[in-house]
Amino acid sequence: MSKIFVLNKPLDMHLHLRDNDMLKLVGPLTSNSFSGALIMPNLVPPITSKDALLSYKSRILEACKDDNFTPYMTLFFQNNYSFEFLEDIKDEIIGIKLYPAGITTNSETGVSSMDIEVLRPTLENMSHLGIPLCIHGETNGFVMDREKEFMPIYESLAIAFPNLKIVMEHITTKDAVELLDKYPNLYATVTLHHLLITLDDVAGGMLDPHLFCKPIAKRPEDRNALLNAALKAHPKLMFGSDSAPHPKHKKECCGCAAGVFTSPIALQVLVELFEKHNALENLNNFVSNNAQKIYGLNLEDKTIKLVKKDFIVPAIYEYKDEKVVPMYAGKTISWSIEEITK
Amino acid sequence: MSKIFVLNKPLDMHLHLRDNDMLKLVGPLTSNSFSGALIMPNLVPPITSKDALLSYKSRILEACKDDNFTPYMTLFFQNNYSFEFLEDIKDEIIGIKLYPAGITTNSETGVSSMDIEVLRPTLENMSHLGIPLCIHGETNGFVMDREKEFMPIYESLAIAFPNLKIVMEHITTKDAVELLDKYPNLYATVTLHHLLITLDDVAGGMLDPHLFCKPIAKRPEDRNALLNAALKAHPKLMFGSDSAPHPKHKKECCGCAAGVFTSPIALQVLVELFEKHNALENLNNFVSNNAQKIYGLNLEDKTIKLVKKDFIVPAIYEYKDEKVVPMYAGKTISWSIEEITK
Repeated sequence: MSKIFVLNKPLDMHLHLRDNDMLKLVGPLTSNSFSGALIMPNLVPPITSKDALLSYKSRILEACKDDNFTPYMTLFFQNNYSFEFLEDIKDEIIGIKLYPAGITTNSETGVSSMDIEVLRPTLENMSHLGIPLCIHGETNGFVMDREKEFMPIYESLAIAFPNLKIVMEHITTKDAVELLDKYPNLYATVTLHHLLITLDDVAGGMLDPHLFCKPIAKRPEDRNALLNAALKAHPKLMFGSDSAPHPKHKKECCGCAAGVFTSPIALQVLVELFEKHNALENLNNFVSNNAQKIYGLNLEDKTIKLVKKDFIVPAIYEYKDEKVVPMYAGKTISWSIEEITK
Repeated sequence: MSKIFVLNKPLDMHLHLRDNDMLKLVGPLTSNSFSGALIMPNLVPPITSKDALLSYKSRILEACKDDNFTPYMTLFFQNNYSFEFLEDIKDEIIGIKLYPAGITTNSETGVSSMDIEVLRPTLENMSHLGIPLCIHGETNGFVMDREKEFMPIYESLAIAFPNLKIVMEHITTKDAVELLDKYPNLYATVTLHHLLITLDDVAGGMLDPHLFCKPIAKRPEDRNALLNAALKAHPKLMFGSDSAPHPKHKKECCGCAAGVFTSPIALQVLVELFEKHNALENLNNFVSNNAQKIYGLNLEDKTIKLVKKDFIVPAIYEYKDEKVVPMYAGKTISWSIEEITK
């Protein structure tokens, strides 16, 4: 009989759903198998008002067609969010996402300075209202150093705002893993692909645009540190796929866009990975319980039964004119989703 | 009046000309403006016999159509080259190129071990006959460490064969620059693109396949060390473009091939670069005299007069079905080739 593993209420705490037809294509690929997801606000223009937020949420719910899926909405950080504005929107959001300007896709209107005094007004309001801060933590330095160079900024923020929950998004380095244990109010998400690949997979053989992402995959010792923390389900670490659908023609071209699309394979590959390392008993913590505790979430039951049976990853997912190539396109994963119970 | 700079007998000491229509396309782009070039032997199959070598040389001469251009031929290293074979071919070659197996384009039949005892028979014969050894010095480790990890192998070879001239090809790291001064029989080539770019240019913004090469571009401090050594025309360092034409469709695709095509822009960009750093007085040493001394070459006169005048790099070079995109395609270089005198 085939081996079985059951995931309870899986959560993707860092997800890009985009909008329009792309949202209609990728939304169901997450909502079908996850209980909820933290939705990134970097649309064009970014989500900075309650109207835009509620409207985006309703488009997501419509696209996702699963009444047992919760999109946890986020605002795009701005320096001038007033207490009244945040108090009013508080119950509609799970956190606010801060991007340094120009650091990744659709982040042009992010903050131009990480000077704490510039950020202080919004951050103090967030701290008083208990709204978590999610950060894309990279400087504009040399590509392999950008996250490491951001560590002192995380430290300053953690010290300056001890009551603010700060989530280091999609961490990629040993340094970030080590920082988790240094400040009680620092948390992190990690993607699936950063548990699997290093720069070698992107550029060590032929160049692979489908594995090109920001932050870029780092060194083997970084990947190993991330993997070890995930396998033991470090209580301050959450799964966040950072699954980012880019149209096929923007990945397979000369100026390839950054992002790896993992939503439809994430759970299957996570089970495969945790099984390989004899850590399946920690997977529900990594992919659900940790995030529930950190963010204080209450979820209805949703169980995903996976069975050890080959799953051949589709070469492409498409809807109307949108075409997205997933990670591991055409390859075989040893686990499949068998049944979803709500 | 426009500024003028004259290059005398420029040499490209590391060049890929490929074969057939590609050779006919790229050959003249080097032979027109260079006095000579060291031709890499990694065809399919590689050049390992006198017949293959002479035949390839005659195809090059035919394609290049410039009677004042010398292709300096190399053999593809094998462990079993006898003294008699090498003695017979000695006058037809300038050196023998060693590739670790699988390390770059068409290197599948390279050596599978860098164990000195395995390499010794051929290397002793080369040492006795005064044939230089050119090495692609990379391990199969993590992509950013491959050259650094090869340094102890260079050191062992330099010590074991003190009379063998060893050329570290296309060096990309500070470590390799520093090794130049440590052993009298170690020399190096450096490419144009490794004087200009870092990994940031390949993958720091969007992914740029046209700047993807092996060895991969490294860190800013590496690029700076290479540039400083070139600008002062370190006497053991030679210009070697490693210009590697890959068909356009193999660069702008999912599994992009490694190599940067710089032949038609190399001299113009070198003048621009050395002028920018007030080092024009050293450029003839870097691009010709150093190599003449290291390899003991005698060249007829060939002067390339460059003038400070915009040169817009063609978007593509083509011949029949072959299409190659050069570095800086469509961009403007501030120096142009004005006149070539033989």
